[in-house]
Amino acid sequence: SETEPGGEAVRGYDFRGEFDLGEMLEAYATTGFQATHLAEAVDIAKQMREEDAKIYLTLTSNIISSGLREVVAYLVREGFVDVIITTSGSLTEDVIKTEKPFKMGEWDADEAELREEGINRLGNIYVPSDRYVWLEEYLYDFFDDFFAEEKVRTPTEFSRELGKTLDDPDSVLKQAADNDVPVYCPALNDAEVGNFLYYYRKQHDTDIGIEIMADYDDLIENGMLADTTGLLVVGGGVPKHHAIMTNLFRGGADYAVYISTGMEGDGSLSGAPPNEAVSWGKIKEEETNYTQVQAEATLVFPLLVAGAFADT
Amino acid sequence: SETEPGGEAVRGYDFRGEFDLGEMLEAYATTGFQATHLAEAVDIAKQMREEDAKIYLTLTSNIISSGLREVVAYLVREGFVDVIITTSGSLTEDVIKTEKPFKMGEWDADEAELREEGINRLGNIYVPSDRYVWLEEYLYDFFDDFFAEEKVRTPTEFSRELGKTLDDPDSVLKQAADNDVPVYCPALNDAEVGNFLYYYRKQHDTDIGIEIMADYDDLIENGMLADTTGLLVVGGGVPKHHAIMTNLFRGGADYAVYISTGMEGDGSLSGAPPNEAVSWGKIKEEETNYTQVQAEATLVFPLLVAGAFADT
Amino acid sequence: SETEPGGEAVRGYDFRGEFDLGEMLEAYATTGFQATHLAEAVDIAKQMREEDAKIYLTLTSNIISSGLREVVAYLVREGFVDVIITTSGSLTEDVIKTEKPFKMGEWDADEAELREEGINRLGNIYVPSDRYVWLEEYLYDFFDDFFAEEKVRTPTEFSRELGKTLDDPDSVLKQAADNDVPVYCPALNDAEVGNFLYYYRKQHDTDIGIEIMADYDDLIENGMLADTTGLLVVGGGVPKHHAIMTNLFRGGADYAVYISTGMEGDGSLSGAPPNEAVSWGKIKEEETNYTQVQAEATLVFPLLVAGAFADT
Amino acid sequence: SETEPGGEAVRGYDFRGEFDLGEMLEAYATTGFQATHLAEAVDIAKQMREEDAKIYLTLTSNIISSGLREVVAYLVREGFVDVIITTSGSLTEDVIKTEKPFKMGEWDADEAELREEGINRLGNIYVPSDRYVWLEEYLYDFFDDFFAEEKVRTPTEFSRELGKTLDDPDSVLKQAADNDVPVYCPALNDAEVGNFLYYYRKQHDTDIGIEIMADYDDLIENGMLADTTGLLVVGGGVPKHHAIMTNLFRGGADYAVYISTGMEGDGSLSGAPPNEAVSWGKIKEEETNYTQVQAEATLVFPLLVAGAFADT
Ligand SMILES: NC(=O)c1ccc[n+]([C@@H]2O[C@H](COP(=O)([O-])OP(=O)(O)OC[C@H]3O[C@@H](n4cnc5c(N)ncnc54)[C@H](O)[C@@H]3O)[C@@H](O)[C@H]2O)c1
Ligand SMILES: NC(=O)c1ccc[n+]([C@@H]2O[C@H](COP(=O)([O-])OP(=O)(O)OC[C@H]3O[C@@H](n4cnc5c(N)ncnc54)[C@H](O)[C@@H]3O)[C@@H](O)[C@H]2O)c1
Repeated sequence: SETEPGGEAVRGYDFRGEFDLGEMLEAYATTGFQATHLAEAVDIAKQMREEDAKIYLTLTSNIISSGLREVVAYLVREGFVDVIITTSGSLTEDVIKTEKPFKMGEWDADEAELREEGINRLGNIYVPSDRYVWLEEYLYDFFDDFFAEEKVRTPTEFSRELGKTLDDPDSVLKQAADNDVPVYCPALNDAEVGNFLYYYRKQHDTDIGIEIMADYDDLIENGMLADTTGLLVVGGGVPKHHAIMTNLFRGGADYAVYISTGMEGDGSLSGAPPNEAVSWGKIKEEETNYTQVQAEATLVFPLLVAGAFADT
Repeated sequence: SETEPGGEAVRGYDFRGEFDLGEMLEAYATTGFQATHLAEAVDIAKQMREEDAKIYLTLTSNIISSGLREVVAYLVREGFVDVIITTSGSLTEDVIKTEKPFKMGEWDADEAELREEGINRLGNIYVPSDRYVWLEEYLYDFFDDFFAEEKVRTPTEFSRELGKTLDDPDSVLKQAADNDVPVYCPALNDAEVGNFLYYYRKQHDTDIGIEIMADYDDLIENGMLADTTGLLVVGGGVPKHHAIMTNLFRGGADYAVYISTGMEGDGSLSGAPPNEAVSWGKIKEEETNYTQVQAEATLVFPLLVAGAFADT
Repeated sequence: SETEPGGEAVRGYDFRGEFDLGEMLEAYATTGFQATHLAEAVDIAKQMREEDAKIYLTLTSNIISSGLREVVAYLVREGFVDVIITTSGSLTEDVIKTEKPFKMGEWDADEAELREEGINRLGNIYVPSDRYVWLEEYLYDFFDDFFAEEKVRTPTEFSRELGKTLDDPDSVLKQAADNDVPVYCPALNDAEVGNFLYYYRKQHDTDIGIEIMADYDDLIENGMLADTTGLLVVGGGVPKHHAIMTNLFRGGADYAVYISTGMEGDGSLSGAPPNEAVSWGKIKEEETNYTQVQAEATLVFPLLVAGAFADT
Repeated sequence: SETEPGGEAVRGYDFRGEFDLGEMLEAYATTGFQATHLAEAVDIAKQMREEDAKIYLTLTSNIISSGLREVVAYLVREGFVDVIITTSGSLTEDVIKTEKPFKMGEWDADEAELREEGINRLGNIYVPSDRYVWLEEYLYDFFDDFFAEEKVRTPTEFSRELGKTLDDPDSVLKQAADNDVPVYCPALNDAEVGNFLYYYRKQHDTDIGIEIMADYDDLIENGMLADTTGLLVVGGGVPKHHAIMTNLFRGGADYAVYISTGMEGDGSLSGAPPNEAVSWGKIKEEETNYTQVQAEATLVFPLLVAGAFADT
């Protein structure tokens, strides 16, 4: 007994006419494999916008190391994003980049040589050590003010107050501060901001601290107040889990788009596809409310933004 | 001793103005990680065109299962590709698609159910079994003519003569036949075309055969005659190795772009990055003549084509 | 000019005689690809033991979800591990498992059905919801005591005091508490322990908090006091970075073994191989002091333990 | 409504007593993630043996590059394997290794330097160029005899006759020839054996050829005669597809174990898990007759052999 399946015909983009990105992304829907998922991601993100969902953008730190920083800043500046959840490398590097750029480098550089030249390597991106010298001074000044008010602060206060001091329109922290977008970062110590906090506490006042439960409450409760939520999950780790776990309290996120290189078969949270979150109630189960694009984010995130958040 | 590294500043696409794909792809160069490699791939492919290199396009069969088939047909139709190397699923499926489309499906379908419905699954693409019924008849007719001429034929003859019978402008085989682009396929038996050859030989004449050394000689010698060669390697496997191995005879390919999901650490040919081929003399060592994009091809191959082979 | 390279001959395990695991792992050294890395990992771990290095074990939460929990508990019980760094799912799940097991399940289960049956899925592992009901009560009792002493506590205090309440010799937290092994977990809120803290704070006292800088100082300073340090990094994420970042303060870890499925090409911290940490000074550069095994941990971690930490 | 799921409790290996590999592999069944799949693989392979299934071992060429060559030779020597399907690099390299070893090397060697030193790199394995000089002479002698008999030969004849000339008990080709195990290799030209065939034909006789359809018929028909078949699929590519495609003719393989690093989401044949083959009828659908271990083969294939094919 044979059935003609109901799906659309597989057919790729037609390069015959004048090139049109919107049409190409539509053709991705019927191109198959991951292209289809990218087209779904664009559709789901558009739905988030149409329904005025509270949009959570979660980011691993290397997104800010890369040129996606400027793309994220655009999204925040234009009011497309309501919540950011990230790890502390993002904060460190966004601040540095307001003053001094990172540089394109090589994956297979000689590490010992780099070490001698004072160049730190992040994949194919170089961060010269002088950036951290500058950052140290910048942060010590900031800490003086920040901890003067109160000794024990939260990561969202940290990122907001730090963002306010910045002056670069392509800074994610600055745009977040200006647009009232909270930046959650529970493991705030786990990067150079943590290192400088360590030195600062030692030299000034060991009663200074970072408390993380108040932020968690906020994140949960703001989620519960939202009519509709949508997740843009770029990379995995703590930011991804923070978003889906706190959406559990409202019965699951309404929409979710994951962009990830994670491997499902390792049982990791980072590799878990959106449907795993359904069993937990972290994402709602509907027909077309979630997808995952298996891809390195620098390749596809700009396309997602072009397709769903820009006038192309 | 500190050095400011010489590379360009890391900086992503600026979504402020009107969207422009060409500018976005240029911004990929300074976005880092794989985006930088895609920008390199576009540049290298442009160089291949400028220097009028003999361009080898190698494809795994699933590229033809997907909507990239139409994109490949475009490249051949426009004269951008000089040699195709692939596996036999490509031939099988390109022919079917001239008559009946594949359909979009689901990765996690119930396999036993699909089996009952006569639907074969290729990732998230469905191929109903009636396609193979149609193909059988089509191929038997073709075989009658093809083997009437000579009993032992080569894969390039097979694909050329088969292509000539087709009538779909989006067929890769048809375009290849029309544009004198040879289609190499050493393991011609390893797909449904092989199965139908098996039945046909059994019923008609077991002296019918496919001989693979003549093609290999051609491929080597045509490579040696070329002033400049460039490889567009989409996926890995036999097609990839066939291209680099035969370029060894001319002292290595001049340009190479790989698009792959392969894993370097498994020591596979499919996962081997272009620099491994340098030690063998399969690719020439120069500054900027090769790159690899680690990505699923449906996501990035249309962008490569848009950037290097279309007027965008 | 040809050179015979100096390396050992490639040669695999000889199954002719009686099987011997130690010999098989030695043969891995000359088997190539990742097997060679596993053999290196065993050697490096043995060196850590011989030099009485302070051993940091970093774990993603899913390691505790899996049967590696018992293997980790063994390492702690036997005194082989000095510091644990992990994420909060580990704490949550280690406690549950002292009372009720997780169950083997299926990757491709029907999520909506699981949801109805109250079964949460973690890869191919099932966690029935009643586990969290039990946990809630257990933790509320624990919180009463824990926060009675002081309102703002640290993650290491949390795991130590919680561990002391447990009674299962296969509990990692219990063994850590008994053997004075601190368990660092900066993003303590990012799991069910965080959820129950949220409820508890709401019901009892919102002044309760978790402060994360004091732990960071300890981790740095204990690292600086150590003569020699060695890292066993299982999975990536915050735990991995926490270990290498704090070893920066002592000029880098002396030894490092990574087990990871991460992808280098995505520029992520999780995918970064040990040599990237060399440019930062997070791992010392010597001949044979670090390696990475690209593998899912359940496959190889027991072999590493068998080879370096058990009498086989 | 809550259900206690029926699966076994998740629980890892107990290192307390004396180490026992068999018990460790049993504990893998309840360790979760990929360890569970490796335990399934051992069970399924044991079932193949118990039911005296015709066992097909498929191999990518790099398996022979690595120390798994000796493990494969063991399996053939002991009569555990009935059919081998591979690619031509395997043939090339098995012959070389009878005379001269490959050497352990480095992944990140300087390629241009290697090139000057005449060292070819295969992952972390080095093959000095003199091996190919030796091979050339060896093969030319072999070709003289081989093509004297008949001008157009098949890949299975090629590997059998070549194997008969070899004298190394660890040679896969020799053991296969001695034990009447056919070695299928449709794309026989795609490696150095092909290159030397090219030169030889040019110098001696261009009527010499390799015909691939006769082998395909044999493979299909021998499969149809078997009561029970079992597949051990190591890596992907043509060998994997050749095995499952020809098992289609008998209604599917009865048992299948895949070991692979392939990615499902790229829609490739190499990444397709066994259940995809069910929809095609290439593998039979039963409860526990197939599994896949997502792993680099050098790490787990020796364990599979130890668990199912050796007295441990
Ligand atoms: N069981 C759980 O995984 C679980 C439960 C509750 C909460 N969480 C939370 O989710 C967040 C993210 O989890 P995470 O940071 O522990 O790590 P993760 O699961 O996100 O993994 C990070 C990386 O580690 C590597 N990795 C993971 N598992 C591996 C394995 N089995 N073998 C080899 N490499 C592996 C992968 O590269 C992965 O991308 C944390 O805050 C954690 O507390 C997780
Ligand atoms: N040593 C060599 O690899 C070598 C030498 C000469 C010629 N060649 C030729 O290159 C062509 C392509 O090689 P191929 O078809 O043998 O396969 P391949 O090396 O391209 O691998 C195909 C797939 O198998 C899987 N795989 C490979 N190695 C694995 C491992 N160690 N563990 C787990 N999975 C693994 C991966 O998913 C990979 O993408 C063939 O024609 C072959 O003859 C290869």
